[in-house]
Amino acid sequence: MAKENRAHKNKIAQLIASKRAHKAHLSPQEIFDKIKSADKSGLAEGITLIESIKSEDILKSQELLKMALPLAGNSIRIGITGVPGVGKSTFIESFGTYLINQGKKVAVLAIDPSSEKSGGSILGDKTRMTSLSVNEKAFIRPSASAGSLGGVARKTRESIILCEAAGFDVILIETVGVGQSEIAVHSMTDFFLLLMLAGAGDELQGIKRGIMEMADSILITKTDGKNVKMANLARAEYKNALHLFPANENNWIPKVETISALEEKGIEKAWDIIQEFERQTKPSGWFDKKRNEQKRYWMNQSVQERLMQEFNNTVGIQDKINEISELLDKGEITSFQASESIINYYNSKK
Amino acid sequence: MAKENRAHKNKIAQLIASKRAHKAHLSPQEIFDKIKSADKSGLAEGITLIESIKSEDILKSQELLKMALPLAGNSIRIGITGVPGVGKSTFIESFGTYLINQGKKVAVLAIDPSSEKSGGSILGDKTRMTSLSVNEKAFIRPSASAGSLGGVARKTRESIILCEAAGFDVILIETVGVGQSEIAVHSMTDFFLLLMLAGAGDELQGIKRGIMEMADSILITKTDGKNVKMANLARAEYKNALHLFPANENNWIPKVETISALEEKGIEKAWDIIQEFERQTKPSGWFDKKRNEQKRYWMNQSVQERLMQEFNNTVGIQDKINEISELLDKGEITSFQASESIINYYNSKK
Repeated sequence: MAKENRAHKNKIAQLIASKRAHKAHLSPQEIFDKIKSADKSGLAEGITLIESIKSEDILKSQELLKMALPLAGNSIRIGITGVPGVGKSTFIESFGTYLINQGKKVAVLAIDPSSEKSGGSILGDKTRMTSLSVNEKAFIRPSASAGSLGGVARKTRESIILCEAAGFDVILIETVGVGQSEIAVHSMTDFFLLLMLAGAGDELQGIKRGIMEMADSILITKTDGKNVKMANLARAEYKNALHLFPANENNWIPKVETISALEEKGIEKAWDIIQEFERQTKPSGWFDKKRNEQKRYWMNQSVQERLMQEFNNTVGIQDKINEISELLDKGEITSFQASESIINYYNSKK
Repeated sequence: MAKENRAHKNKIAQLIASKRAHKAHLSPQEIFDKIKSADKSGLAEGITLIESIKSEDILKSQELLKMALPLAGNSIRIGITGVPGVGKSTFIESFGTYLINQGKKVAVLAIDPSSEKSGGSILGDKTRMTSLSVNEKAFIRPSASAGSLGGVARKTRESIILCEAAGFDVILIETVGVGQSEIAVHSMTDFFLLLMLAGAGDELQGIKRGIMEMADSILITKTDGKNVKMANLARAEYKNALHLFPANENNWIPKVETISALEEKGIEKAWDIIQEFERQTKPSGWFDKKRNEQKRYWMNQSVQERLMQEFNNTVGIQDKINEISELLDKGEITSFQASESIINYYNSKK
């Protein structure tokens, strides 16, 4: 029995290996042709190539992106965040299905740098998206394996390009409302949606400060059964609160709505809001301006990350930083004297 | 007449030059002795030394700071922000005078990197602080000359050390609520005070998004005459709004109060709030923890700034960035390909 099991496992391992080898043999041009003809397996292969850390794959992925870029850009990119338990997967299932019924093609990506390297702590559980995951016009990709936020962000941005080249016109990017990844998602999307539970106060503890001010819309989820009253109250409160916030530079006032995925109520409101946002920000040129700023932002971020990487990889630098930090904590030197010592060490090692 | 004027101007110029020469001859030890004996002119000279960009002065200022550091830290550092016209100078005049009557010694500094190099666009007009500026127990320093935010922040942080060494136990750091400088001030103070005008909505346009969430307290100014009703309404609204915000990690709930500098009402409430804040955050160790984090923050910021400086000073790098950015804007390359090209150029020039 144990032997049979082992034989079975070996067979599966061989299958996976041959499948991988097969994929590895596809040229960037072949993958691109598949993507261009809206082949979802080709899109999946392209993203796998982008996620690979092998140097030959990195070169190939750059070739692929070069071909895909002219076809990219024609989608609305929507960031979706909220604490675990708020109902993100359920919302995406309903919202995605609604959009497909409106004639759209929907791609769902996820950013979660905190997830283990096995990959996919969010969106991994496709069983919660039963209907969307089997829909011909939907493409769902679990979150990439863990790594630096910069690395994960890069892969996600490049995945967006491939999804757009494959003809997906709504890209949903999911993240968990607890960390730095919200800023990353906010900086690569056109519209930022925050899902919240009614019963303000305690439930908010999980959301990091600053995220509320990034939201273009707040949707209060689970507005069904005995929650309805509380959700409507919460809606009024958030509307008031957001009204007190400083205005966005695009003069968009964040909209607050209640929804129920369970009772399939309010999902269409989310899309109405996003369409209104497009109507308001596209003619003024603000929409495209923001995308250009985002491109510059990621270029600069990436340059900074590379410089810091080089710095952090310097032999002995961490020991030096620890040694200097101790003097700093004891109040024997100022922050700037500490920085001088560290930079001097770095320059002596270059 | 014109001749007399010129002669008069020359005389003044000579006086200033001789005064400067005199200052330059004071050793760090002599300046420190003056500061230690709470001599305000010594403190002013010390800050002038810190602000100097001459290399010999930089060495001297480091010597001075080394001596001053063991005497520093025993103050409450309060950041004060709000758009122009909200009444910051008037508030500082009243608040500072109130604190001095409570037995405190009050130093007032300012950060405004946007000000012209003549120096002191805020706090420059000491006539608005007539009573405080002549008070024996007050020290007012206009904002340092313009420069990079990092440079200005460094000078301000070092000035705080000297003020504390001179025995000032309340340090007020003023800034304008419109730029990046709020984040800098927030990151070097224990308590962050946001001044706002009543009549929410339009007036808020000047405040940058994100600043409200940094505030430990919001004071609604000019609560006098026909403004009283509106101010009280605004107070209730802000209280509600802040209640909806995610909690601070120190569990401090930002307090909202109304004040009138004109009628000298409510100034004491500001100090009550700050004392309550100290009572809540000092025993838990959070107060000191935050100061240590701030020290590390500024060390890291300064290291990053130095690395970026070196990068930006590379011959031809700006032309390269412009050339690459054009390809990026046209959609011919991705942000990360752009970054690669720039980093490759940089590495080839090192």
